[in-house]
Amino acid sequence: VKTVPKNNLIYTFSPSNKPAETVQIGERVLLQTEDAFGGQLSSGQRTLESLDWAKVDGATGPIYIQGASPGDTLIAEILDIRTAEEGVIVTVPKQGLLGKRRFKSLSKVVRLKNGIVQFDDEVLIKTNPMIGTIGVAPKSTEIPSSSLGRHGGNLDTKQVTAGSKMYFPVFVEGALFAAGDLHALQADGELCVSSVEVTGEISVKFGLIKNQMPKWPILETEDEYSVLSCGRSLEEACQFAVEASVTALMREHHWSFEQAYMFGSLAVNLRINQVVDPKKGVRAAISKEFISLDSYLD
Amino acid sequence: VKTVPKNNLIYTFSPSNKPAETVQIGERVLLQTEDAFGGQLSSGQRTLESLDWAKVDGATGPIYIQGASPGDTLIAEILDIRTAEEGVIVTVPKQGLLGKRRFKSLSKVVRLKNGIVQFDDEVLIKTNPMIGTIGVAPKSTEIPSSSLGRHGGNLDTKQVTAGSKMYFPVFVEGALFAAGDLHALQADGELCVSSVEVTGEISVKFGLIKNQMPKWPILETEDEYSVLSCGRSLEEACQFAVEASVTALMREHHWSFEQAYMFGSLAVNLRINQVVDPKKGVRAAISKEFISLDSYLD
Repeated sequence: VKTVPKNNLIYTFSPSNKPAETVQIGERVLLQTEDAFGGQLSSGQRTLESLDWAKVDGATGPIYIQGASPGDTLIAEILDIRTAEEGVIVTVPKQGLLGKRRFKSLSKVVRLKNGIVQFDDEVLIKTNPMIGTIGVAPKSTEIPSSSLGRHGGNLDTKQVTAGSKMYFPVFVEGALFAAGDLHALQADGELCVSSVEVTGEISVKFGLIKNQMPKWPILETEDEYSVLSCGRSLEEACQFAVEASVTALMREHHWSFEQAYMFGSLAVNLRINQVVDPKKGVRAAISKEFISLDSYLD
Repeated sequence: VKTVPKNNLIYTFSPSNKPAETVQIGERVLLQTEDAFGGQLSSGQRTLESLDWAKVDGATGPIYIQGASPGDTLIAEILDIRTAEEGVIVTVPKQGLLGKRRFKSLSKVVRLKNGIVQFDDEVLIKTNPMIGTIGVAPKSTEIPSSSLGRHGGNLDTKQVTAGSKMYFPVFVEGALFAAGDLHALQADGELCVSSVEVTGEISVKFGLIKNQMPKWPILETEDEYSVLSCGRSLEEACQFAVEASVTALMREHHWSFEQAYMFGSLAVNLRINQVVDPKKGVRAAISKEFISLDSYLD
């Protein structure tokens, strides 16, 4: 299996990044990933106060996918995620939903074993290994890997996990896919700004849909499709996700705008991905019973 | 069974509303409820254009609960919800998440039978009968029944359904409980501003916790407790819900703020109730594995 080691870290999604590897459609690839802090905290090499912020939020890649061209859809099928047996969670003053309160900088290393996070002596909680950052290069700008957008990026969506598929619009030749920032566990909203940040490996396989692309990344899970959008506020992110979902419902069922808008109110669930970064992320989820992937593609 | 007929409609939650009925703790009560449009659309009596808006968003009540005093917690156990066999959905120009688009006023009557909404000839979708508006009188102000707050109100939370329990802070003698605005079905966010609005009956039983009250209404479902908060934006609503949830985690586990804040990021799921009214509503849900009701009470 082709392996991309974790010395290939990008800190921006950019059309000018040089490929770390080139792969074919259908080929399995293994990405070795660094944790959100570039391993500085888990190794004890640095503290939160002395953190080198230039080494934060790296993603492994980019990978050049043969045959992917602007206007296509890149399918990234997540086959497996494996994490290290230790992760780190932090509180950072001024950060998160309660950032206006006064509190301390704290970094906590936790053990992960057999699918369980040992939070303290008494409290155990199940893991749900997921990919925090996943995306492709945008058309012409550089976007920090800590941010998100139509190209994907720091989506922080807990269903981006083994067994899921992501559909990205392709903006440049080869797509330039990258992923990283594994979370052993995260709740919707990521309220304190950190999850169980962990190093690990992602096994992924790519597919292509030629000459059609979605407006926003689409997530496919067992039962649902979700539009993953972002905005300056959750409300704005919701508007974008609803626009894409209602348009897809009109196409799928040959409905008027009004009919699709009504049905959306019954069947499109608006859910929070994260609300603690400058750009807020939501997903608009709908059962596969009512929509097919095609209807999301322009 | 004591029955409160639907000619007892309130349009504000207010300490000065006269009780429609008085009940004891543990007694079953049946509330007959009007739909969100006061039956004007389903009866064909009015169109959206000629709607009498003074008859919109009524709740049945209020009910005076013997023994409930300011500072207590009122438990409302929802035993059963029954709906009529016909409901109505609307699109209202300028309303909902895509209110900036130009579209028509449309009102659509749908059949409900055997737990299925017949949306059109081809599309059927399962019902999930829920209570849109439920709450108690606030301390001193009048709050329109179309709005929401610490007293409850138009919460539009799809888990407020048969089998769930709601815990409300009591602000006035007798609590003055009211409920209405049944939805046969609603997705998280209620994106177009309307659900399947329907008349029906709510069977409810009350309990009391003396001398302790939650900051916001608490919802208990089979597996989770949720804080139901609201704010001028979803972000502000999230802040309030997180403040209450993190405080509860500190109490439950004798954790520092920092530990509870971290754990919240792993276990407290922020979810959208509705994003289409002037006040936005969210819920912060956490597994009962990690919290008990007591920890939410001051």
